[in-house]
Amino acid sequence: MSDAPYTLVLLRHGESEWNAKNLFTGWVDVDLNEKGVGEAERGGVLLKESGILPDVVHTSLLRRAIRTSQIALDGCDRHWIPVVRNWRLNERHYGALQGKDKKATLAAYGEEQFMLWRRSYDVPPPAIEPDDEFAQTHDPRYAWMPPEVLPATECLKDVVHRLLPYWEDVIVADLRAGKTVLVAAHGNSLRALVKHLDGISDADIAGLNIPTGIPLVYRLDADLKPIVPGGEYLDPEAAKVAAAAVANQGKK
Amino acid sequence: MSDAPYTLVLLRHGESEWNAKNLFTGWVDVDLNEKGVGEAERGGVLLKESGILPDVVHTSLLRRAIRTSQIALDGCDRHWIPVVRNWRLNERHYGALQGKDKKATLAAYGEEQFMLWRRSYDVPPPAIEPDDEFAQTHDPRYAWMPPEVLPATECLKDVVHRLLPYWEDVIVADLRAGKTVLVAAHGNSLRALVKHLDGISDADIAGLNIPTGIPLVYRLDADLKPIVPGGEYLDPEAAKVAAAAVANQGKK
Repeated sequence: MSDAPYTLVLLRHGESEWNAKNLFTGWVDVDLNEKGVGEAERGGVLLKESGILPDVVHTSLLRRAIRTSQIALDGCDRHWIPVVRNWRLNERHYGALQGKDKKATLAAYGEEQFMLWRRSYDVPPPAIEPDDEFAQTHDPRYAWMPPEVLPATECLKDVVHRLLPYWEDVIVADLRAGKTVLVAAHGNSLRALVKHLDGISDADIAGLNIPTGIPLVYRLDADLKPIVPGGEYLDPEAAKVAAAAVANQGKK
Repeated sequence: MSDAPYTLVLLRHGESEWNAKNLFTGWVDVDLNEKGVGEAERGGVLLKESGILPDVVHTSLLRRAIRTSQIALDGCDRHWIPVVRNWRLNERHYGALQGKDKKATLAAYGEEQFMLWRRSYDVPPPAIEPDDEFAQTHDPRYAWMPPEVLPATECLKDVVHRLLPYWEDVIVADLRAGKTVLVAAHGNSLRALVKHLDGISDADIAGLNIPTGIPLVYRLDADLKPIVPGGEYLDPEAAKVAAAAVANQGKK
């Protein structure tokens, strides 16, 4: 493994206030809850113990990923590294489902439609109305964007489409410069990246869940292909348990 | 004031573990204490209430300034803005005094020498030895620096000298681009910047103390000169009380 030229670390944010309430979140900027802060701290401990110390961090524009990165990097004494933030790392935009209860949505629309929205590759939920209280219409962090680019809903395919240019141009440039790169982001933006890295099919990506707060390390070869498909979690046992729990979300 | 083209906000970090213990800190990377976290939170509230919301933040490479910026920006919903970090915003390097008790140093060297080291413009403390436990010899965040640039001690004049290139090239570029700029830094790196902005003499800068955690707003004209000399604290009464307390440090 030591001859792998590039090291990429993925970190999904810890539990948020809305994860705990079982609401669809997407681009709504909710904070970590206490459990989520603890998960981010554990991420920092795992990084420190592993000796895999990031040289640069990329985050989304959302508080739960930003705070997770800050807490984890503080915990491994890498609070001082350069930070880059971009909307292309944001969670999938959940459209009109943002702010809705997952269980109530399941009951209202049935399991088939619910699972299509949650796990299909190319079926987005209905678009959010611009005046919906959970729309990002007046959010200053997106005010500069061409209006046709600001999403009103996204399927995972849309996330892959808007994330890949950032991977190709920005993250890859840091990897090629020899930096150990941390990407602190979200369940679906990280699934989109992993789909690309591991060449997972549109069908098979439905079954992949990334647990929160456990660094996932990819050693990449000269062609940026994973040396170990799927990467390696710094706490593999905890990752297995957590991924199973994520898969059952919305059914409780 | 609304015709002032540029807005610069200075924020000195809140109380650290070593401020509270009355130790010289300099480049030693101590954390905020609980009071310091509260001061950073107050800074965020003051920014939010004032409506002066940063578009970009510049910090030192030291944890107490980094955390102060993160807490204050989280408090005014600006956690998502771009972050730039540079050693040129670090606190003054306190040389061999780093880690030493201020009161004991005062007793050992006498008030004249003590005040020369603390407040003279051009008398640095003795250089720190490379193998001193409080030296930055093996700190990875400075490993890339040409060895002759990494300081072993600094007087305020040295801080002005290494800070100004960063002001001129980086911070001014952000101001000229129309951004409201937050600089989260330290007692002496902010004194160095204020000395430059307000054209304070080498002698008079000794009497200037910048309180912790209270945003200091400079509206600058087209020549980057302060419209109100000395700037304006967002909580002027608290700033007055706090500045007096800083002036008495080391005498307790």
